[in-house]
Amino acid sequence: MTTKTVNTREEIIRKGSELIHAKGYNATGIQQILQAAGVPKGSFYFYFKSKEDFGLAVIDYFTSTMGGVFVKYLADTTMAPLQRLDGIFAYCETFYEQMGSARGCPFGNLSLEMAGTSERLRLHLNSVIGKLVSGIEACLKEARDNGVLPADIDAADAAQAVFHGLEGAILHMKVAKSMEPFRAFRRYIFAYLLTDKCGKGGVSDYA
Amino acid sequence: MTTKTVNTREEIIRKGSELIHAKGYNATGIQQILQAAGVPKGSFYFYFKSKEDFGLAVIDYFTSTMGGVFVKYLADTTMAPLQRLDGIFAYCETFYEQMGSARGCPFGNLSLEMAGTSERLRLHLNSVIGKLVSGIEACLKEARDNGVLPADIDAADAAQAVFHGLEGAILHMKVAKSMEPFRAFRRYIFAYLLTDKCGKGGVSDYA
Repeated sequence: MTTKTVNTREEIIRKGSELIHAKGYNATGIQQILQAAGVPKGSFYFYFKSKEDFGLAVIDYFTSTMGGVFVKYLADTTMAPLQRLDGIFAYCETFYEQMGSARGCPFGNLSLEMAGTSERLRLHLNSVIGKLVSGIEACLKEARDNGVLPADIDAADAAQAVFHGLEGAILHMKVAKSMEPFRAFRRYIFAYLLTDKCGKGGVSDYA
Repeated sequence: MTTKTVNTREEIIRKGSELIHAKGYNATGIQQILQAAGVPKGSFYFYFKSKEDFGLAVIDYFTSTMGGVFVKYLADTTMAPLQRLDGIFAYCETFYEQMGSARGCPFGNLSLEMAGTSERLRLHLNSVIGKLVSGIEACLKEARDNGVLPADIDAADAAQAVFHGLEGAILHMKVAKSMEPFRAFRRYIFAYLLTDKCGKGGVSDYA
């Protein structure tokens, strides 16, 4: 593959990912993606075997962009564990607000739209989501071991609950076209779920 | 309208709702809906002005069926407030398990798929979701006033967090094709979020 074909493929993925994020997978046509990427009609199958293969590449794109930001926060040991989690919430709040509260989480959108009809997309999404939840779990375990969360907390269940709340908050934000549902969840999780109401100290202790 | 046309319209909505729940809105074609309902090709526009009008009727269908169960639980004052909420979780767990953990929440699915492309569907979904969240809020206020939840809890934020967690748990269940993410959330919410870890008593006190 020459540099040009690599760049063309990446440009199709980048523009296609934006369109799928805005409109959904089924509502985004192949010709529309090629047009947005400035690539001649009919050349899609030179780069991808099928729309499903393209969908897998779109998941990888969001894993390295948005997922990459999550991993960066979760790995930043200069911050206390719950501060890292709040960093993710702060990042999401800015990111979604810039998009007019009008786009959901790419992983959540694709999960609900495609898990029932494409087993390959479902398995890939499930694997990516599993890694994000594991990262949150490691963070909560560290907070528990530091005595910030109760010693008997089930970090695996708690990590899933944090992820579920985040996905649900983004879903509600998208349908309300307002940041308020997201902010309500962020306030609540750090006021009651992950704080001294349930443990020994909250995010505020580490600010 | 004769009884027959009313029944035919209802049958189209019922079968169409099932298909949309299983495959999504965009992936479900009008002909496929008519075929499932046993209605002649081309008669869709006798009953509905557009697919979007049909989508509004699908939301109403799920509001009266699944939403009706939620309202029934939330209004059942023979149970303590947190028991009513757990009743909703128990109902959802049975409902989704019977569907092989393969279908999301109809309101959540449609929100993420359609909020960005149909303003009418978005507004209708947002109104239905707002009512569900208000019902949860009333329940949590009652628990707070009974001294079961902390006196300073923000019932509006907490109700949104419960709804968000529920939607996120169902999303994760669908992509994992397993009930475990849903069960993890149910365990966590009643062990830490709405219980004596944060207040004076949990669901177990009322069993």
